[in-house]
Amino acid sequence: MTRRHSAAFTLAELAARLDARLVGDADRRVTGLATLREAGPDQLAFLANRAYLKDLADTRAAAVLLHPQHGQTCPVARLELDNPYLGYAALSRLFDPLASRAPGGVHPSAVVDPSARLGERVEIGPNAVIEAGVSLGDDVVIGPGSVVGADSAIGPGSRLHANVTVCHGVVIGERAILHSGCVIGGDGFGFAHDGARWHKIAQLGGVVLGDDVEVGSCSSIDRGALGDTLIGHDVKIDSQVQIAHNVQIGDHSALAGCVGIAGSTKVGRHCMLGGGVGLSGHLTIGDGVQVTGMSLVTNSILEPGVYSSGTGAMKNAQWRKNAVRFKQLDDIAKRLSRLEKGRDG
Amino acid sequence: MTRRHSAAFTLAELAARLDARLVGDADRRVTGLATLREAGPDQLAFLANRAYLKDLADTRAAAVLLHPQHGQTCPVARLELDNPYLGYAALSRLFDPLASRAPGGVHPSAVVDPSARLGERVEIGPNAVIEAGVSLGDDVVIGPGSVVGADSAIGPGSRLHANVTVCHGVVIGERAILHSGCVIGGDGFGFAHDGARWHKIAQLGGVVLGDDVEVGSCSSIDRGALGDTLIGHDVKIDSQVQIAHNVQIGDHSALAGCVGIAGSTKVGRHCMLGGGVGLSGHLTIGDGVQVTGMSLVTNSILEPGVYSSGTGAMKNAQWRKNAVRFKQLDDIAKRLSRLEKGRDG
Amino acid sequence: MTRRHSAAFTLAELAARLDARLVGDADRRVTGLATLREAGPDQLAFLANRAYLKDLADTRAAAVLLHPQHGQTCPVARLELDNPYLGYAALSRLFDPLASRAPGGVHPSAVVDPSARLGERVEIGPNAVIEAGVSLGDDVVIGPGSVVGADSAIGPGSRLHANVTVCHGVVIGERAILHSGCVIGGDGFGFAHDGARWHKIAQLGGVVLGDDVEVGSCSSIDRGALGDTLIGHDVKIDSQVQIAHNVQIGDHSALAGCVGIAGSTKVGRHCMLGGGVGLSGHLTIGDGVQVTGMSLVTNSILEPGVYSSGTGAMKNAQWRKNAVRFKQLDDIAKRLSRLEKGRDG
Repeated sequence: MTRRHSAAFTLAELAARLDARLVGDADRRVTGLATLREAGPDQLAFLANRAYLKDLADTRAAAVLLHPQHGQTCPVARLELDNPYLGYAALSRLFDPLASRAPGGVHPSAVVDPSARLGERVEIGPNAVIEAGVSLGDDVVIGPGSVVGADSAIGPGSRLHANVTVCHGVVIGERAILHSGCVIGGDGFGFAHDGARWHKIAQLGGVVLGDDVEVGSCSSIDRGALGDTLIGHDVKIDSQVQIAHNVQIGDHSALAGCVGIAGSTKVGRHCMLGGGVGLSGHLTIGDGVQVTGMSLVTNSILEPGVYSSGTGAMKNAQWRKNAVRFKQLDDIAKRLSRLEKGRDG
Repeated sequence: MTRRHSAAFTLAELAARLDARLVGDADRRVTGLATLREAGPDQLAFLANRAYLKDLADTRAAAVLLHPQHGQTCPVARLELDNPYLGYAALSRLFDPLASRAPGGVHPSAVVDPSARLGERVEIGPNAVIEAGVSLGDDVVIGPGSVVGADSAIGPGSRLHANVTVCHGVVIGERAILHSGCVIGGDGFGFAHDGARWHKIAQLGGVVLGDDVEVGSCSSIDRGALGDTLIGHDVKIDSQVQIAHNVQIGDHSALAGCVGIAGSTKVGRHCMLGGGVGLSGHLTIGDGVQVTGMSLVTNSILEPGVYSSGTGAMKNAQWRKNAVRFKQLDDIAKRLSRLEKGRDG
Repeated sequence: MTRRHSAAFTLAELAARLDARLVGDADRRVTGLATLREAGPDQLAFLANRAYLKDLADTRAAAVLLHPQHGQTCPVARLELDNPYLGYAALSRLFDPLASRAPGGVHPSAVVDPSARLGERVEIGPNAVIEAGVSLGDDVVIGPGSVVGADSAIGPGSRLHANVTVCHGVVIGERAILHSGCVIGGDGFGFAHDGARWHKIAQLGGVVLGDDVEVGSCSSIDRGALGDTLIGHDVKIDSQVQIAHNVQIGDHSALAGCVGIAGSTKVGRHCMLGGGVGLSGHLTIGDGVQVTGMSLVTNSILEPGVYSSGTGAMKNAQWRKNAVRFKQLDDIAKRLSRLEKGRDG
């Protein structure tokens, strides 16, 4: 990708910013980050995973960010830090060309209702729409084509990328990042059946997102039926995720791509749901629960730990035979019990 | 959430509207709905599920909507109805702030092709686009940023929320609700392979949605390859659902979030597909079939009933052992048979 | 669907275009394509799948496109071709009303940054947004409401349908087709944990799409963390697909709806992933691998072939018994081994 605003920092500046120990030329300038293997002489590399230790000896990087234990084997300048991955995260934000952009103000093509309240340095992109009664905090950025529905409030420092939809009556905390195509506050899926047909249940609740929430591309978080759908602080939601009405997600939990959570389920704090995980409705998932990819959870889980379901992939010819046997599994178990009794008898 | 237009109704008015039996102060005014547990003295609660019967005695609601059998135990005023959930649905729509909004007309920033035909009281939001030859029935609402493609027709009373895309040549019936981010009429996935590469098959069919269809946030319904993709009347589709080309869905069926249906499959009337269910292509699913969450269906199902696949979640350590055994399942079954023969022999 | 520009061709014209052998009236005019069963006397049908051979005798089509081996049994005029499905693909594009549309130029409501470079015959629809530094090749079409982020480049002949989002710094090759609601270049899901909370890793890489790539409605392809996410030439991606950061997809591979691929996984050339397939992160999937619908792949697959996981759908009552037994499977296998030893002992 092209980088429009290429920053440059000396190693001394980076060490100061990270509170890292610098070994090497303090005035050496770096213009970006790269992996150990791909870094050129103007770039800083990092070692945060032992799997890449093999790449350290041959790196062409200007310097490497790493744990002190690997300092001796580093062939170039180095920045030593106890948690180099966290240091990499900090530097990635420093080198982010988006981060240094000056706010663009309100584009003349944007449609902003006169009753909307805008904080300082708010940027509203071309063809965005801000409806009546909306409140945007200081330093909010609304991307092109995004829509913020009536009476919604977005906290300071939050950014909506392009073509995001925040429906009416949604509350978003500080420093949220909403990626393109995501929808916050669409109707929950609620209908009453009269024996012949469906009758819509208007979704009168809202959605409340805490501070530091991130929502990925094309994800959807539905509004509550009566009360609100609640997403805690520092919750990270990947792309293509579906969160149904009245779900609650505790602080610091992370949901990988394609997760689906059915209505009224409560997920605790510090949970991690792998890609494609499905949670049935009305469950309680306690704090610290991890669920591996594509597992289906139909019962509450109260004990912290790692949970899984499903079967691993195998050659189709082998799988077909085993899948047929799965349908006989109860019968197989009963026959085994009979054999065991026969032997004992 | 903030409610901009808070309605208020007397219990007598609500009883008349629902044809319910009122026991209590006919002039008591309520301004909204809430659960038994959360309702305040200005709100109406409802009891539609025995699981919440425990909350009845302590409710602070102005009145409760319930079945006559629970009338005696209700500590406050009550509205008795045989199907209180249906009554709740009706009142939810009554208290919906969106429902009482006056239509906003065509916003000056909307781009409406001169050849488009607009019915009475049509509202077209800011920065929406209506292409050539489009027909919008009376009382249609097109949300901000939504696009209606050439020659599409949308029936009276239908609403597109913000950032919806209806592609060209799509027909939508009356009273449809399309939520933000959904796409109706994108190309089906059709390609011919020449042994080395793919050749696109133009998708010349359209999509036809019946009356009273609802489509959730970020869902997609692809256009047909030759004939049309057909969605019946009163079909309810949740968020993040994918419906491929030439699928047919019968009247009154409901599809929960993240369902995926492959090309040319026919789903009957009054079917219910749980969250994340996948249907292979070219299947026939008969009327009245229910499939539980995240099941994969690879064969036609002609008999009504409930169907499932998959394995429930368990602790990862336990699951790893069992998942390995799944790969040995055919072998296990054969060994069991040999043992049985040995015993009998 | 309504067709605005109905083309008409003689059978001789079509035969010449396909290099097919015509048997029948060379001057007979056809105005469109249909299936054998539904074709009327102005339409051309095709026979590309033996399952539809039964419909040949009764077709009312003007002519049928088929393999020479079925020529004798064709009751009407025919076009004979060795690969009739490929011929159908070519004719479908010929009859596509979108294909013959004249480019519409830059709509006055579109917001195009003055620094953007536009090729010849570029069309930019109403309310689209083209940011600074963007390059659009000749014959590019940008649909209404679509946004192309700063410094992105889109190759000649590519088309973005309505409400597409291409984020900043994305490179798209020639003749790409991006369907409505898809998002190319949203942030990958990267965070460092400090033991208490998450710290964002800015996603500094981009996305590179090769030539002839198609991306379905509401799909998302995330930008790389450092290097780029790479999609090869002639890769076909269906709707509701999620491709995470730094994934690589080889040329000519096809991904059906609802596929999810986790970070840094490499998929080879000529692979086919069925609907809803999930690939874990950091895997290598070799060339020519096919994975059937809704399978979960957690290990690399280096050998070409067909792979599967999961269990087929069955009646819920039967499934419940078997799913319980799945949780006992390791125990069942051990008990079987003990029995076998007992018999041998």
